[in-house]
Amino acid sequence: MTDLTMQDALSRLSAYWGGLGCLTVQPMNTEVGAGTLNPATALRVLGPEPWKVAYVEPSVRPDDARYGQNPNRIQCHTQFQVILKPDPGNPQELYLGSLVALGVDITKHDVRFVEDNWASPALGAWGLGWEVWLDGLEITQFTYFQQAGGITLNPVSVEITYGMERILMALQGVRHFKDIEYAPGISYGEVFGQTEYEMSRYYLDDADVPTNRELLSAYAAEAQRMIDAGLPIPAHSFVLKMSHAFNVLDARGAVSTADRTNEFARMRRLSNAVAKLWIATREKEGFPLGQVAPPPMTATTWCEQPEQVGPQLLVFEIGVEEMPPAEARDARQQIETALTTRLEAGRLTYGTVQVRATPRRIAAIVTDVSDRETDAVTTVRGPRASAAFKDGMPTAAALGFARSNGVSPDDLATVTADGVAYVCVQREEPGRPAVDALVEALSIVVGGLRSAKNMRWSDPELVFTRPIRWVLAMWGNELVPVTVSRLSPGASTRVHRNADQPSVSVSSANEYLPALAAAGILLDETVRRKVIIDAARAEADKVNGSIDADGEASLLDQITFLVEQPTAILGDFDPRYLGLPDAILTTVMRKHQRYLPVRDGQGQLLPHFVVIANGVIDSATVQAGNEAVLRARFEDAAFFYRADQTIPIATMRERLHRLTFTDKLGSMADRADRIAALAQVLTSGIPLGEREKATLERAAQIVKFDLGSQMVTEMTSLAGVMGREYALYADETTDVGAAIFEAELPRHSGDQLPQSTPGALLALADKLDSLIGLAATVGLPTGSSDPFALRRAAVGTIAIHRGTPALAGLSLRDALAEAARLQPVPVASETIGAVGEFLARRLEQQFLEEGHAVDRVRAVIIHADRPSTADRVLRQLTDLIETPDFRRLAAALQRARRISTTGGPAYNPVTLTEPAEQYLHEAASRTANDLPEHPDLGDLVAAGGDLPAAVDTFFDDILVMADDPEVRARRLALVGAVAALGEGVLDWQALKL
Amino acid sequence: MTDLTMQDALSRLSAYWGGLGCLTVQPMNTEVGAGTLNPATALRVLGPEPWKVAYVEPSVRPDDARYGQNPNRIQCHTQFQVILKPDPGNPQELYLGSLVALGVDITKHDVRFVEDNWASPALGAWGLGWEVWLDGLEITQFTYFQQAGGITLNPVSVEITYGMERILMALQGVRHFKDIEYAPGISYGEVFGQTEYEMSRYYLDDADVPTNRELLSAYAAEAQRMIDAGLPIPAHSFVLKMSHAFNVLDARGAVSTADRTNEFARMRRLSNAVAKLWIATREKEGFPLGQVAPPPMTATTWCEQPEQVGPQLLVFEIGVEEMPPAEARDARQQIETALTTRLEAGRLTYGTVQVRATPRRIAAIVTDVSDRETDAVTTVRGPRASAAFKDGMPTAAALGFARSNGVSPDDLATVTADGVAYVCVQREEPGRPAVDALVEALSIVVGGLRSAKNMRWSDPELVFTRPIRWVLAMWGNELVPVTVSRLSPGASTRVHRNADQPSVSVSSANEYLPALAAAGILLDETVRRKVIIDAARAEADKVNGSIDADGEASLLDQITFLVEQPTAILGDFDPRYLGLPDAILTTVMRKHQRYLPVRDGQGQLLPHFVVIANGVIDSATVQAGNEAVLRARFEDAAFFYRADQTIPIATMRERLHRLTFTDKLGSMADRADRIAALAQVLTSGIPLGEREKATLERAAQIVKFDLGSQMVTEMTSLAGVMGREYALYADETTDVGAAIFEAELPRHSGDQLPQSTPGALLALADKLDSLIGLAATVGLPTGSSDPFALRRAAVGTIAIHRGTPALAGLSLRDALAEAARLQPVPVASETIGAVGEFLARRLEQQFLEEGHAVDRVRAVIIHADRPSTADRVLRQLTDLIETPDFRRLAAALQRARRISTTGGPAYNPVTLTEPAEQYLHEAASRTANDLPEHPDLGDLVAAGGDLPAAVDTFFDDILVMADDPEVRARRLALVGAVAALGEGVLDWQALKL
Repeated sequence: MTDLTMQDALSRLSAYWGGLGCLTVQPMNTEVGAGTLNPATALRVLGPEPWKVAYVEPSVRPDDARYGQNPNRIQCHTQFQVILKPDPGNPQELYLGSLVALGVDITKHDVRFVEDNWASPALGAWGLGWEVWLDGLEITQFTYFQQAGGITLNPVSVEITYGMERILMALQGVRHFKDIEYAPGISYGEVFGQTEYEMSRYYLDDADVPTNRELLSAYAAEAQRMIDAGLPIPAHSFVLKMSHAFNVLDARGAVSTADRTNEFARMRRLSNAVAKLWIATREKEGFPLGQVAPPPMTATTWCEQPEQVGPQLLVFEIGVEEMPPAEARDARQQIETALTTRLEAGRLTYGTVQVRATPRRIAAIVTDVSDRETDAVTTVRGPRASAAFKDGMPTAAALGFARSNGVSPDDLATVTADGVAYVCVQREEPGRPAVDALVEALSIVVGGLRSAKNMRWSDPELVFTRPIRWVLAMWGNELVPVTVSRLSPGASTRVHRNADQPSVSVSSANEYLPALAAAGILLDETVRRKVIIDAARAEADKVNGSIDADGEASLLDQITFLVEQPTAILGDFDPRYLGLPDAILTTVMRKHQRYLPVRDGQGQLLPHFVVIANGVIDSATVQAGNEAVLRARFEDAAFFYRADQTIPIATMRERLHRLTFTDKLGSMADRADRIAALAQVLTSGIPLGEREKATLERAAQIVKFDLGSQMVTEMTSLAGVMGREYALYADETTDVGAAIFEAELPRHSGDQLPQSTPGALLALADKLDSLIGLAATVGLPTGSSDPFALRRAAVGTIAIHRGTPALAGLSLRDALAEAARLQPVPVASETIGAVGEFLARRLEQQFLEEGHAVDRVRAVIIHADRPSTADRVLRQLTDLIETPDFRRLAAALQRARRISTTGGPAYNPVTLTEPAEQYLHEAASRTANDLPEHPDLGDLVAAGGDLPAAVDTFFDDILVMADDPEVRARRLALVGAVAALGEGVLDWQALKL
Repeated sequence: MTDLTMQDALSRLSAYWGGLGCLTVQPMNTEVGAGTLNPATALRVLGPEPWKVAYVEPSVRPDDARYGQNPNRIQCHTQFQVILKPDPGNPQELYLGSLVALGVDITKHDVRFVEDNWASPALGAWGLGWEVWLDGLEITQFTYFQQAGGITLNPVSVEITYGMERILMALQGVRHFKDIEYAPGISYGEVFGQTEYEMSRYYLDDADVPTNRELLSAYAAEAQRMIDAGLPIPAHSFVLKMSHAFNVLDARGAVSTADRTNEFARMRRLSNAVAKLWIATREKEGFPLGQVAPPPMTATTWCEQPEQVGPQLLVFEIGVEEMPPAEARDARQQIETALTTRLEAGRLTYGTVQVRATPRRIAAIVTDVSDRETDAVTTVRGPRASAAFKDGMPTAAALGFARSNGVSPDDLATVTADGVAYVCVQREEPGRPAVDALVEALSIVVGGLRSAKNMRWSDPELVFTRPIRWVLAMWGNELVPVTVSRLSPGASTRVHRNADQPSVSVSSANEYLPALAAAGILLDETVRRKVIIDAARAEADKVNGSIDADGEASLLDQITFLVEQPTAILGDFDPRYLGLPDAILTTVMRKHQRYLPVRDGQGQLLPHFVVIANGVIDSATVQAGNEAVLRARFEDAAFFYRADQTIPIATMRERLHRLTFTDKLGSMADRADRIAALAQVLTSGIPLGEREKATLERAAQIVKFDLGSQMVTEMTSLAGVMGREYALYADETTDVGAAIFEAELPRHSGDQLPQSTPGALLALADKLDSLIGLAATVGLPTGSSDPFALRRAAVGTIAIHRGTPALAGLSLRDALAEAARLQPVPVASETIGAVGEFLARRLEQQFLEEGHAVDRVRAVIIHADRPSTADRVLRQLTDLIETPDFRRLAAALQRARRISTTGGPAYNPVTLTEPAEQYLHEAASRTANDLPEHPDLGDLVAAGGDLPAAVDTFFDDILVMADDPEVRARRLALVGAVAALGEGVLDWQALKL
């Protein structure tokens, strides 16, 4: 609690950053969604000029409009934006200083840097960084800005964006933004409440869609004109206006996925042109503010250190600003591999290598590292000895070789290889002292560290997921002066930033682990994970609840890499929120807050959660903070949920008319209509009971209606989930609810599949409609770009087919043809073919990823049109392939197919004269008789009987290529008949036996 | 000079006003032309709720874009805006405190409050107040906000708007805005220079006109929709967007006068609707911030004062915040009249009354005011004495009368009136002490003070041109406790605000004048004016120059009421500015800066000026400041002038196509074409020499081209002046230059008239085109509204006709008919008639205003179609009316016209038998013979001869209405012939002899 008003807070931040040399500028005089868009950021981060600025930016997000009723969402929130260009090297510490300036006691609160990478597709901008959490509340976005307007930034800017309302609510301990004390004696609600209400009305209800579309296109035209005129600043301002007009349309529900893609592409293109123009203009002016020079190399001088004798412990720590969990895990592995590889390749001896990681460090502990490298001798081979000396005198060849190696001919020795003697130079390489060898090895290891998504910061050479800020390497009590780019080594490590001594000196390797332990840091991730689980369970137990450690494995993995010193805290929430669907509650807890849900013995959610805080904090403070955050999040969800429940399904379905799918493919309502029609068409040939028919009919009528709900608009991952929820609320049958839910499955790779046939049909129809419609209008994805996620649709199509027995007989090509007929645009038959091929390639890749050998996959891919068949055949193949029966049959069929082809002329059995011919004919005929109409591999092996034997006998006894053309033809036809037995079951030739 | 950066200055102002309880809010997130438009002002000043706010507002004025080249004009300047609602009573003092907070030494600088009334027609907003001048530089606008959105404000807000760039340039002593130190080590130019250039490009060159028109109408539609939806805040935001789009069009030169009028009307209408909605919405919410109560009455207690005996000096001072010069003069007169009237009506005796005024006070000095009123007796008359007493006893009537007057019947006396005795009550009214009488009189005088344009401030009852802040009334050494509304009296006056003691106690009337004198204040305006002239002459003399006190009389009158303690300071400017036309330089000096131009013996401008500062100041500081201001102003003018000179006349003329005159009447180019054509048409019947013909032909081709110049766009009062200037620069003939100049005459009532016939024809055509075109499309003005200034066009038309001998024969109706033919719209003949009538009424009013008797004006107004004829006839009438000849003739004609009418049947002279008949016939015939074809009054009187005698004889001898119908008809016809002689010369019946 504080009596700091919002007005004071803004003024203190201005003063704090101003004192650090930041300019103050004014907010942008057109609506912007974020402070980043202000030219003081968006343009100034471009190019080589230095720039430091701090300013307030009221940020308008029409989508967040809630009539001022929601305690936490507002259409205009106040950002405080800081840009530090270049990165000063300690921006996190500077940032924490600003929290102290706001009166935050950072020794009591859980302040955390949680991965959050910022990207604005519309601006062609992105950066890597964190959300800063204050007791679970996101109060700041902290980003190393990597690209703006599609231009890679160099130098990189640090961007710090404070969410002022959130900060003030937390500091003042109020639950509704309106209750923030804005200035002495006047509340935020009194100053801005009416604006919130009225602008919400505009954005959500009353903005005229055609007018805003008109504005959007007028702005785009002006932006382009200004680009053509070579004026980046007005052009940028019109791009911002476009962006706002787009956001208004979006809030009015008038933007489809495809609209979004198209508009983003247009804005990105314009932003890129603006960025290029800006840089060109500044360059023409000679970069008036100067150019950022890379930071100077730190000259490091080292005291003479007493020489150590014998093996010593090596500690090697790389200090990084908070890494994303997955990156930290990966970095640990990388360092382990790289270090081990280096050590193995080197000539130091050592004991064991252990590498551990926390969010802020990757540390290697190597025991018994020898004090010197072992000595070595290297041999450089020269000409043959026979050519090197003639009459005991060195020849010209020997002289040349000696000279080029800088030795006297007298020093040439002889070496023998493959029985031939060569002259050679032998060099003794005495082992270097350990420290020298380690400097080289460790420098390469640090410099080689990479992540999936790398950033640049102020360092001119290093790139990694987050800035590397320090490196500690101690061999015994000797510092290993690892110097990589501008990093310089020091005999210290860093502990919690809010510790009394954030930097702790480490004067020997042995002191390292005790130093971390003393600071409470659990270096070992395995230990940390266990401590987290145990502590969380202990907390849950207090309310007779439990944590599902297996079910939450992925969340726990994340949490393990979010903290260095886990402290579990039990938090409560109002039980009335339990009235919300489980999926909403857990989505919010897990995904947004990384809280562990607490359940009772029956698996029902309890009104509690466990948060894992970091470091030494004040538990009560942190608990209260996190509870407030969760309440706000639940309140927000409840707002949507209640609002949606007042809207009939038909009305939500009706809203789909306002959502464009794509220009050429009509609205989402059109698309839902097509999905409904296609699902019905696909039922032909599929056995459906009366109840299933009724379910499909109703579900088809309302499929996708929940895209018209506020909850799904807000949390798109709940599409289908909310559909089921709202369907049941509206007294639809359980089956219809299930079908509506299943129509959206699978939502990602590995997701559950539809269980009911109506659900599967709708889900399949959904994907096929996308695939065929978009392939016909915008084309199939190429390269890495797949804006409409057609690859996911393809994978889903295949998964549904494979996972739904009732669909086993369905031909995807037939289904695609039906989907094509329903499109509002003509679809060429080549397109249907191309989509079929696209699906086949996905199926092939899936099989490969599932671990099947490539030849087997190739052998079964002929069934790609019916993936479930391919699946079944592949399973049979896997089961049978090592069986003698199969192998003999396969060998026989392959042998037959090598000689002849199927589908040739038939033979007359009575003309067969040789017993081996007759035997083969009989075996083949019997097999053919025993096969069902569409035989699969099992059928074939079962019916095969003595066919392999007959084939073998035939080829042993008979010369197929007889001189008599008639005989030859007859025999080829017989072999062809055998080959035909395997036809359509496998691509036999592809199979390698 | 200061090292205060702009950033610091903004922060200090925020802190200063924040410390006084003002909220800080952020700038508006759409382009605004001024901080006033931010809803924190525009909406919050409405209604009864209190509000105090201070904020920065980057204010965009596309018209002021100069590519960053002009040192003083920028498309986006930074305002710091303060709203104090209600008026705290001492806002000027609070404001001066803010200057001190900025480090301004207000004891050295000339800080002045110079009348400047703010009005935004587009917002339906206005206020009264001042520009605050710092050494001649306008640094702040200080306004008592009276109306917003067309709604009268109650309570009134004080609005203070700082122009930050100007302030910083002055404080830092830099000459170009780019050189302002914005923050330590970085200049304004470095931060904003590129933006200035690029946005200037957009506003001046590259903004797409059709797109911006489209935006304007889209915004207007949204604004209206939001009003219909009852949402004032989004509606307001769209009105702001409209305003900006309009300003962009304006800067692109795409707005005509008529466009402006129409768009302003639309915005005003929308703003009014917004304002009403805002108030209604707040009222519905119960005015959440409370309602401003009127300030409490100050309870004043007075010490017992020793009683004074004998007449004493009375000093009575009304202290006002700086009055506009004209209002101060008028207030002085008002107080003199009101005070004198009151004193005369009262019973105090006194010597002389002198009233004097300065900008801040009106003071009356009355000598020898007696210590008491003279005693008086009042008599209340009752019933007749005869009815009052019966038998010596009072009757019921007397008893009732006595009772109702609160006296005993014994006290009834008798009084006689008109010879009848009545009972009466006589009351002695002993004179009150002087102070009691004066309290009453002076309170009424103060409360009755009014100005042409009154404002409200925090006082619930008083209204005046500016707030009345104190009142001092001393009779001898006794304070007269004048208490009017919330004003309370004090025994002190106020001197310069920057004096050590701004408030000076005055413990007796005798101390008053010495106190002012001690503070250097010259109370007597006559003395002040003389001191100003003498001091200015002395300064001019230093450079061998002179001041034209007669020529500058009106300016000197103003200056006299701008200062209380004049200090003349000679300033210089760079002689190279003398290359600019005299009209530009003097317009800038006089109109913008109130500087006295200095001329040499030949009347040529010298590169010097005299500024009259106020109070004790540091002359060097003030001189330097004023020079910098004038340099900036001249630089600005030079910028336009140079820019215009690079543009050919044809190109400027071409630009008129971009200026719409009105929707229906086409562009300004169309209008100029019509004027040209009409001027040519009007030449028919007007004798023109060859040279005149050539002049007219060329001038008509280019007439109004200077409306396409930047200078005229900027200073519209120079239209015509610049036309002549640029025409001569482009080697047109002097005659053509003159005609172009004269085409714009007269620019205001009393202005010079065209001297050349071509000029007169163009000027007339200009006015006739406006009149007929606008009458046909928007109608003639009614009431006080005359948006297109048609009254001025009418007055100009008349003045030109009266002032140009060559046009004497021109019929305005014919000319209007020609003008009508040229319009792009059909013009009904009723419209032509109505415009003719409109002109006639103006002429009539003009004659009346020139002091002619109404009957004479009515008598000549029949010539309204040719005002010069009317003029001439009126002059003749004036000359002749007292002559016996005229009077007899007029009497004769009136007599004839009373009996008969003109235009009846003729008579046969041979049938006239009576001598008087024959005599009259002969006299009339002779007169008719002697008259020229179009006789005027002089002709008629000259030809009249013995007609009056003949008429008299006729009526003496002859009975017109003879019984014989033939005789009667003949005689009536004869009289009719006489009457006809005056026909068309005067309206004889209207004339009162």
